[in-house]
Amino acid sequence: MLKLYYGVGTCALASHIALEESGADYVTDRVDMKANQQNSPEYLAINPKGRVPALVTDRGILTETPAILAYVAQSFPGANLAPLSDPFAFAEVQAFNSYLCSTVHVFHSHKGRGLRWASEESSIEDMKRKVPDNMRACMAMIESRMIKGPWVMGEAYSVCDPYLFVVSSWAQGDGVDLAEFPKIAAQRERMKQRPAVQKVLEREKA
Amino acid sequence: MLKLYYGVGTCALASHIALEESGADYVTDRVDMKANQQNSPEYLAINPKGRVPALVTDRGILTETPAILAYVAQSFPGANLAPLSDPFAFAEVQAFNSYLCSTVHVFHSHKGRGLRWASEESSIEDMKRKVPDNMRACMAMIESRMIKGPWVMGEAYSVCDPYLFVVSSWAQGDGVDLAEFPKIAAQRERMKQRPAVQKVLEREKA
Repeated sequence: MLKLYYGVGTCALASHIALEESGADYVTDRVDMKANQQNSPEYLAINPKGRVPALVTDRGILTETPAILAYVAQSFPGANLAPLSDPFAFAEVQAFNSYLCSTVHVFHSHKGRGLRWASEESSIEDMKRKVPDNMRACMAMIESRMIKGPWVMGEAYSVCDPYLFVVSSWAQGDGVDLAEFPKIAAQRERMKQRPAVQKVLEREKA
Repeated sequence: MLKLYYGVGTCALASHIALEESGADYVTDRVDMKANQQNSPEYLAINPKGRVPALVTDRGILTETPAILAYVAQSFPGANLAPLSDPFAFAEVQAFNSYLCSTVHVFHSHKGRGLRWASEESSIEDMKRKVPDNMRACMAMIESRMIKGPWVMGEAYSVCDPYLFVVSSWAQGDGVDLAEFPKIAAQRERMKQRPAVQKVLEREKA
């Protein structure tokens, strides 16, 4: 049985939704990010990087959102969560998820995790000030050049969609008005109508 | 025919080596990063993100190193560049590459690309000071928890290897002594002995 470690408000929501959509038999364990439980010895034994998500499988533990999303899609092909038999289309999925992971998530993290990259209080405040503009630029890039609509990859829902759902909610929290980005805003509304999304959001809120 | 846009000293070297290893029919085009050619209108038409690598295929253009590496591995299965038929093992490859892309590359970029995340000169200098320790911590994580040896994924060479080759060279340039990390140091030496690596390094130097 698969076991997902997640934290509320984190990118692990994408893996959580993907698992729910996949039909997998899985359980979850919440990591208390406010209590810094991700850096407890118990959790570091699961993921030495001290981050969520982590997915425990019968073969070992997987980390990193793009890797977990592709793993879920490949392991449950019947759920049609990625174009598995088409290397180019699969690479487009991966490129989108990699952009969210390495660029957009990183911009967002400069609001609350600045101490990873700088030490002085003035630097941390400087970083925070740039976050809204950077997140807006990312949403503009996604809106104009990446999202095909109605889902990220077009007519087919994929593992890109729960990941964008997470990141666009962060953009809102960072001060970006999604009304400027109608395709992204519409994708969010469609996501909220999916039973799997509703179920996962209830579970994470409970 | 595939066409790779790369810049000297960038992570595009990983895709360049993977293409050479794959046996693909491909050409390359060098983007002059010192002249900021990656932000020229001509290049932004290829990759609106203004980054390398970009891989032109007959289906369209791919970006993001982890996506290009997986695409090359999947498109040329005879080259055995990833465990394609095993979703768990493939996810381990992806997790490794995702860590390099979203964590290690980002730490390194705070040395030379700090203006992405902050504006004040004092912040930029503050960021630069943290780079050596952060890169050393990443190399320690890779050495102790990730690299299986002799290659990243064990006995089988994979697309993780050229990517680590790039990132460990950055770590050296950032002040990390790889003698502290014998598995990583040995992987670098093995890489340098591969004809494909030698050929690509010559081409990028020319």
